[in-house]
Amino acid sequence: MQVVALAGGIGGARFLRGLLAHLDAAAVAAEVTVIGNTADDIVLHGLHVSPDLDTVMYTLGGGIHPEQGWGRAEDTRSVQKELTAYGEGPEWFALGDRDIATHLVRTRLLSEGATLSEATAVLCERWRPGVRLLPMSDDPVTTHVTIADPSTADGTRTLHFQEYWVRLGAPDALAVIPVGADKAAPAPGVCEAIGSADVVLLPPSNPVVSIGTILAVPGISEALAATPAPVVGLSPIIGGAPVRGMADKMLAAIGVPTSAAAVALHYGARRAGGLLDGWLVDSGDAASVATVEAAGIRCRAVPLLMRDLAASAAMAAEALTLAAVVAGR
Amino acid sequence: MQVVALAGGIGGARFLRGLLAHLDAAAVAAEVTVIGNTADDIVLHGLHVSPDLDTVMYTLGGGIHPEQGWGRAEDTRSVQKELTAYGEGPEWFALGDRDIATHLVRTRLLSEGATLSEATAVLCERWRPGVRLLPMSDDPVTTHVTIADPSTADGTRTLHFQEYWVRLGAPDALAVIPVGADKAAPAPGVCEAIGSADVVLLPPSNPVVSIGTILAVPGISEALAATPAPVVGLSPIIGGAPVRGMADKMLAAIGVPTSAAAVALHYGARRAGGLLDGWLVDSGDAASVATVEAAGIRCRAVPLLMRDLAASAAMAAEALTLAAVVAGR
Repeated sequence: MQVVALAGGIGGARFLRGLLAHLDAAAVAAEVTVIGNTADDIVLHGLHVSPDLDTVMYTLGGGIHPEQGWGRAEDTRSVQKELTAYGEGPEWFALGDRDIATHLVRTRLLSEGATLSEATAVLCERWRPGVRLLPMSDDPVTTHVTIADPSTADGTRTLHFQEYWVRLGAPDALAVIPVGADKAAPAPGVCEAIGSADVVLLPPSNPVVSIGTILAVPGISEALAATPAPVVGLSPIIGGAPVRGMADKMLAAIGVPTSAAAVALHYGARRAGGLLDGWLVDSGDAASVATVEAAGIRCRAVPLLMRDLAASAAMAAEALTLAAVVAGR
Repeated sequence: MQVVALAGGIGGARFLRGLLAHLDAAAVAAEVTVIGNTADDIVLHGLHVSPDLDTVMYTLGGGIHPEQGWGRAEDTRSVQKELTAYGEGPEWFALGDRDIATHLVRTRLLSEGATLSEATAVLCERWRPGVRLLPMSDDPVTTHVTIADPSTADGTRTLHFQEYWVRLGAPDALAVIPVGADKAAPAPGVCEAIGSADVVLLPPSNPVVSIGTILAVPGISEALAATPAPVVGLSPIIGGAPVRGMADKMLAAIGVPTSAAAVALHYGARRAGGLLDGWLVDSGDAASVATVEAAGIRCRAVPLLMRDLAASAAMAAEALTLAAVVAGR
């Protein structure tokens, strides 16, 4: 079975770990291709940092910091302390020593002319994440967020997503812009994987700055619309709030209420030109199933909190079951 | 008093620390300009590493690993271990975490268009080494060493100096080539500092791959020949052997015997078109004083082992005294 998943960072990575555990436990022979968000990427100290790709790679490869959900396990901050001693900013984004090695390898490869896809493949040779990890694009796409700022001429300020999120802690946002997306092409293999998939999954990642930026790359939405595979997503919103992160602020910026049903309607039904064939909401949001189904999206309410690997695996199983249902299998 | 010193790594740095201690103890108002060797520079993992500049900067700035003589005090190897786990070579040159921060800052500055001089000045803003540290050149100069290798067509192999020294442990060498020196220009301020110096000192650095490469940059030898300042050197050879390093192998490669006198004659007397007005040999090499003086170089035998800061300071005092003698002051 060919499985394609679009993924952001922590939520996507934890879901994928559950997916692999489920496939393994169910003895399903499957190839999983992960299309990773790269619009959170940032250059720090000359290093190309790809937070979402690394979170997926570390999580599936066994190198993730387990509580933090990002960065390397048992990492230290010697380099960062020294950079601070040199007065090198930004002070709001600290890189771990082990993590820096990853960025050094990636940056060197990119400087030698490798694409981000090629650099990611080299890094994955070590981590063996058990999936084919593809960046959404080899071209630079960068999420910028506009916030209110009375001190500027037009009353707004536009920031790199990392500054908005890590430095400012995600204040109310006026707009989210995937800069460069219009000129970006899907990375090699992305559209092919979608086209030949047996199922496409949308893990409970941020609908705007993770899944949304992937969909903003011209060609990817079209491939998803055209694939014969069912497309099933899992709500990152439970009980009207994001499980983690700042999806509420990002959804508000694009005018979408923070609810499991509203996100499904935002994605839209495939039969109506949208993205989704199926949608999973949390058991506590069972009341929204009817709304989603009324929009032409098959919907089930199941437990969606990824408390542990077993919970994530069960969610993956539910997603695959719903995919089989919508595919009429 | 304007003092200019040409310096390699450990020997040069320890001498300079002694020089500053002496000047301070003697309450001599002096500005010291150090012209540092950059031909040992190497790019590792995409990072521009300047071992000699850093050894001077760390030693004078209080950040040096005291026993090792290079690298940072109390450093760790987290990044390097990870790079090794990625299969990233070379395995024979390990960078410390704290040290990597220095290289990150330098590399970022260079990638943004800064010259090596400018990057060095930025790094020195933190370390405040108490000297003006100038690279010999902002242009790339790289020492290559040719060794015998029966496995090749012509029976020789040519390596980067660091591979020759760090990886191979300095086997017999056939030639030493400062690649790029012919096209390099002295860094801004280098020739001006030499021209306006009251004294020029050659610390006990390697005569071939430290001092020799500095002299190989067109314009620097000419500036030394033209300066009104006395030029006084200290022998890095004591009792027919280098105090540290591989100067014996490097001297043999250029046909110079490993002796304090031979190095002086290799540099030559200024009055005969050479470099030196004065030369200090170790007390144990007092027998060579007559040979050096016969060549037109004023020579004294004094203790030259830098056992501690006091010993290095005493050597600096002797060098300045000899400079005053040859200047007729």
